[in-house]
Amino acid sequence: MRIVYADNAATTSVSRTALEAMLPYFTEHYGNPSTIYSVGREARRALDTAREKVAKALGTEAKEIYFTGGGTEADNWAIRGTAELRQKKGKHIITTAIEHHAVLHTCKDLEKHGYEVTYLPVDEYGRVTADQLRGAIREDTILVSIMAANNEIGTILPIKELCAIAHEKGVLFHTDAVQAVGHIPLDVKELDVDMLSVSAHKFRGPKGIGALYVRRGLSLPPLLTGGGQESGRRSGTENVAGACGMAAALEESVEHMDENVKKVSAMRDRLIEGLLKIPYSRLTGDPVNRLPGTASFVFEFIEGESMILSLDAAGICASSGSACSSGSLDPSHVLTAIGLPHEVAHGSLRLSINECNTEEDIDYILQTLPPIIQRLRDMSPLWEDYIKKFKA
Amino acid sequence: MRIVYADNAATTSVSRTALEAMLPYFTEHYGNPSTIYSVGREARRALDTAREKVAKALGTEAKEIYFTGGGTEADNWAIRGTAELRQKKGKHIITTAIEHHAVLHTCKDLEKHGYEVTYLPVDEYGRVTADQLRGAIREDTILVSIMAANNEIGTILPIKELCAIAHEKGVLFHTDAVQAVGHIPLDVKELDVDMLSVSAHKFRGPKGIGALYVRRGLSLPPLLTGGGQESGRRSGTENVAGACGMAAALEESVEHMDENVKKVSAMRDRLIEGLLKIPYSRLTGDPVNRLPGTASFVFEFIEGESMILSLDAAGICASSGSACSSGSLDPSHVLTAIGLPHEVAHGSLRLSINECNTEEDIDYILQTLPPIIQRLRDMSPLWEDYIKKFKA
Repeated sequence: MRIVYADNAATTSVSRTALEAMLPYFTEHYGNPSTIYSVGREARRALDTAREKVAKALGTEAKEIYFTGGGTEADNWAIRGTAELRQKKGKHIITTAIEHHAVLHTCKDLEKHGYEVTYLPVDEYGRVTADQLRGAIREDTILVSIMAANNEIGTILPIKELCAIAHEKGVLFHTDAVQAVGHIPLDVKELDVDMLSVSAHKFRGPKGIGALYVRRGLSLPPLLTGGGQESGRRSGTENVAGACGMAAALEESVEHMDENVKKVSAMRDRLIEGLLKIPYSRLTGDPVNRLPGTASFVFEFIEGESMILSLDAAGICASSGSACSSGSLDPSHVLTAIGLPHEVAHGSLRLSINECNTEEDIDYILQTLPPIIQRLRDMSPLWEDYIKKFKA
Repeated sequence: MRIVYADNAATTSVSRTALEAMLPYFTEHYGNPSTIYSVGREARRALDTAREKVAKALGTEAKEIYFTGGGTEADNWAIRGTAELRQKKGKHIITTAIEHHAVLHTCKDLEKHGYEVTYLPVDEYGRVTADQLRGAIREDTILVSIMAANNEIGTILPIKELCAIAHEKGVLFHTDAVQAVGHIPLDVKELDVDMLSVSAHKFRGPKGIGALYVRRGLSLPPLLTGGGQESGRRSGTENVAGACGMAAALEESVEHMDENVKKVSAMRDRLIEGLLKIPYSRLTGDPVNRLPGTASFVFEFIEGESMILSLDAAGICASSGSACSSGSLDPSHVLTAIGLPHEVAHGSLRLSINECNTEEDIDYILQTLPPIIQRLRDMSPLWEDYIKKFKA
């Protein structure tokens, strides 16, 4: 059966370049980078090179890049670390209602420990404004954490502008850039952020590795203590192969970014144009400032889960809400935050494509999805009620 | 040049079995296990199977195994999680002076947050007794964390007996079993521990993945919050390939444990016997209850670092003190704890072998090391002083 993978915002396949960059560090050059003999030095060199590549891709220097076990650890570290570092200044954190759970649940956890969190509401497109942020900053605000791009609806947020507002008031700024890195141009120095989270498996690197950019001079305390790796900031034997895979994937993504953005956003636009022809459908997220690969919708009168299963039966991999909660029946917090009623939010679909997808994939989705939606609506009591009302 | 790798306590090469178990999950079956379509279900099945294999190898069930980003994260989670969970009962923790830094530095960090830690001293072999532990437990003791085997001197500690003492007094017991798992028989149910840390790269699995066994019913709060993976206990997209590699390596280690223990400890004994013929040398660690692969020594009148570099020049990879601090000039806390004076501790050598080593490797070490030591002593002012004194 034909498989069309359109859930690249959940995870991606590891690229050949990334896999080839990893392989020698499992077998031949397996040393521990903290050791001083040849086999260890080889691993250390590879780790240093990986760090330089990641730094370069983000517009910074190696000493500001710390490898972590993934994006979630990076988010936890940035938020919990800042909370500890700045607790004497205050215990107020600002974030948005549409952050990834790695940010939201970490903030919720800090609320149990005496911190206060403002969750900025967003508009119908998932946007927050500079004025909103300015109005929310207080004397005791220690951190603003706002994502670079949303994982469910693809909206790109104006990080540079928002960061400037935070800095005006002397507040640290973290961005969860897990969905943005490798997909849109990002330069930490230009954005001027203090911390930025990265996850390798969103741009064709392996799972189980990520990074946190920490601006020089910011003495973020470690989340994981131990052997003192990563300049004492993140202990644990370094995942050398993972770091090499991540660096190779990111380098490749950045090298091909222009052509990928062009190709992928054209395919995304075909999806959007084609699928909005389905009656009672709408695009979710910002129609203009959106990730190149994210086409996200709601289709009224149907259940997202049934749609996902029907698509799966046709070989199309897609998600409804974010991957982390797609097994759950709760409506997505993002779709709720942009003002969609629960019954509409339930009919959400996210198609996230990347440079591995083809025009034929798009054709296949465009011909497969509309009849699925029609069939599901035909079986839906909600649809039947609506039609009856309409006819009455 | 011939390379003899004798630093398997620092890290190991990934086995062919482990690598083959990982590869499909980078490329073909790259799905996110939290998704409900075919590609994701394939990943979920692999993750479930990996969890079952790890559980079986440790004598328990899958639902008590949680994957982490490595041994350090597992140790941090066990200790920080228990500290939070039981803070109303008390803030006293007991550990030993010879734990890995992942435990010691985490305990030190908790001391900054109002916790009190007792570091049990050890005897000349690195042992703690049941009476010592019994005497240290107080009304407000919430956790005992004692390693299953020491990483520097190979001493195996009597975890079952120590755990029973803790449980008599209603205190939770964690063991950092990073050096023991896959090398000596371990059964969490027989030991009766509440938590046990595992690191894959110590038994020929990949770096960047580990696990924490958490006894059912113990509601250890998460260290990393987010998408709710690992039953809500450890968020972050699961490192499917890493988990598969870890499980395959552990399964293989356990299957071949009897023969490996026999083969490896015979080689270790040859190393010990041969190298103790060097004058002014001693074995460190328990002479009987020690890890099959760890031969650890101190050689007086020399610097460990020079010895490591000379061995490296001869193609032998070994370490002085633990891998994590072998770049440092501080004397090892373990060698200090077993009562060695600083100047003696500086001349430490750890040769850690596994089933990949051969009798020829042992021959090569036995013929290469003694002349290196002689040469280093001939250049050492300490040795010169000693000889002068002796002759006077």
